[in-house]
Amino acid sequence: MTTPDTITLAHGNGGRRMRELIDAVFVRHLGNPCLAPLADAAWLPDRLADDEALAVSSDGVTVQPLCFPGGDIGRLAVHGTVNDLAVAGATARYLTVNAFLEEGLSLATLERVVASLAEAARACGVQVAAGDTKVLPRGLCDGLYFGVSGIGIRPRHLALGPSAIRAGDAVLVSGPVGDHGVAVMLAREAFGLSGDIESDSASVLPLTRTLLPLAGLRFMRDPTRGGLATVLHEVRRATGLGIRLEEERIPIRGGVRSVCEMLGFDPLYLPCEGRVVAIVAAEAAAEALDRWRALPKGRSAARIGTLVADHDRVLLVNDWGGERPLLELEDDPLPRIC
Amino acid sequence: MTTPDTITLAHGNGGRRMRELIDAVFVRHLGNPCLAPLADAAWLPDRLADDEALAVSSDGVTVQPLCFPGGDIGRLAVHGTVNDLAVAGATARYLTVNAFLEEGLSLATLERVVASLAEAARACGVQVAAGDTKVLPRGLCDGLYFGVSGIGIRPRHLALGPSAIRAGDAVLVSGPVGDHGVAVMLAREAFGLSGDIESDSASVLPLTRTLLPLAGLRFMRDPTRGGLATVLHEVRRATGLGIRLEEERIPIRGGVRSVCEMLGFDPLYLPCEGRVVAIVAAEAAAEALDRWRALPKGRSAARIGTLVADHDRVLLVNDWGGERPLLELEDDPLPRIC
Repeated sequence: MTTPDTITLAHGNGGRRMRELIDAVFVRHLGNPCLAPLADAAWLPDRLADDEALAVSSDGVTVQPLCFPGGDIGRLAVHGTVNDLAVAGATARYLTVNAFLEEGLSLATLERVVASLAEAARACGVQVAAGDTKVLPRGLCDGLYFGVSGIGIRPRHLALGPSAIRAGDAVLVSGPVGDHGVAVMLAREAFGLSGDIESDSASVLPLTRTLLPLAGLRFMRDPTRGGLATVLHEVRRATGLGIRLEEERIPIRGGVRSVCEMLGFDPLYLPCEGRVVAIVAAEAAAEALDRWRALPKGRSAARIGTLVADHDRVLLVNDWGGERPLLELEDDPLPRIC
Repeated sequence: MTTPDTITLAHGNGGRRMRELIDAVFVRHLGNPCLAPLADAAWLPDRLADDEALAVSSDGVTVQPLCFPGGDIGRLAVHGTVNDLAVAGATARYLTVNAFLEEGLSLATLERVVASLAEAARACGVQVAAGDTKVLPRGLCDGLYFGVSGIGIRPRHLALGPSAIRAGDAVLVSGPVGDHGVAVMLAREAFGLSGDIESDSASVLPLTRTLLPLAGLRFMRDPTRGGLATVLHEVRRATGLGIRLEEERIPIRGGVRSVCEMLGFDPLYLPCEGRVVAIVAAEAAAEALDRWRALPKGRSAARIGTLVADHDRVLLVNDWGGERPLLELEDDPLPRIC
């Protein structure tokens, strides 16, 4: 049997070619006792303890290029969903993966990306419990998109969310912002620039887990699409409170800052794929920062702002007392970087 | 504020436009207590009883055209996942929806499809617990794709699957095959034909539920992509048994047969979106058919074949004793009909 080295429409028709592709690439890398290729649905073995409940999340991944410094679409697919569950206080247990493949996609690329997805899933302790592939005619998909959903376990009683936020609370970020966005933009090579900036694509579960027992923890988010600015605007809208951001305290790598200045992007709007924004009671801020800084991915954690009741904007304040509003993202057509 | 009437790239950037789109279309139609638009993940309220367990499934939906007689991509998205869970013995409770939207998609079309998805979800008793939208540049998506996953509840102890199948078992189908495939192909208008054939898109849960208590129930599948022939080949491969199909007993509507003859398609390979193939012990076949025929969607249910140990092929046998093998689907590039 000759093996074609690109995806063909026959790989999506339900027949032999499709089965061979699923076996050769998806099942080989992702196989586990839950993922029964003949079944329409996986049966999950878990029993929930009385103090546990389920959480579920969903994320589409369309990054271009498929591989970039520090990651690829497979890693991103796993981390995106693991992280959405983590900031909701849950530990991901199972993923489902919908793969949309373009006719003509190289099988070597697919193999590389699925192997990377499998490696990231193993590292995060999650199993791919169900999957599906669809093949789109050439030109109706940009190589490969993933639609991922995640199922996690969380403590049943957990007061976490925007309704817990109060004026005076502290805004923390676990590390530098903008790395992922800049790494992917440079990898697109659309600007004639190159650099050694890597995506921060990683599981944030260690960062969220260490904060969960903290009494003053109010809210956590991973600032992906729309970046830090967008998370803060969502908090502003949900709480009716304002946010005073101390501009110089926001950790941003020098390289990220330089590239953004050259290209006219603001790193506060660029996606991170391995950072957490947490809002904690003021008296818990020091302890939360200590816990984060003890972790490899939290060494640059910083307190960057405060919730305030005297206005309802997101204000950037610099060391000289200058203030400017951080506006909500509107029409900016950012490239597909997450 | 002017409302543009098509999707723009800004609808995917994480900012105000995207939030407005999600509120105006997705949350308005799909809103429920689980779907908190600000959250990264939904918390599910269920506690599982001791005799219950979870099932999970996943399905990508890329049908073109988006709307066709008897359904649309929104209905199909719900039924595809509800049905995958149903044939695994589970009742769907929650869906997650990843929407991939093409720049330039009409908002009226999106609205229509999401409203239809919401209506189908309500009718099936499922809630959309999490969702995500990504906007792709014009030309990199064909209007709209959905990646759907489902979480269902099943009885914890349920012997259902290919390993339960024995020689002598009966193959049943719940209704006519090929309707969905032909309805969508005609709606594509690529053939200069039109007809009154409607998609069979529907929840099969009533059909699966009525069989679950039956002692002789071995296996259920919904014959979607690749059709009845592909399900039977999967059974053949998983069991090592052959299947003797009685050609004249396979229910196929006259209109479906005519269109297939004209266009050179075999209805046994065309997808159904509201049918079940069940394998039951021979002595349970009459009772299973009675139960199906008592339901509105099961009136044309038929026993169409038998599992045999004397060969390992899928053989079509006609009333005159003629035999021909039903081959496995290989290269046929069917249009996107599911």
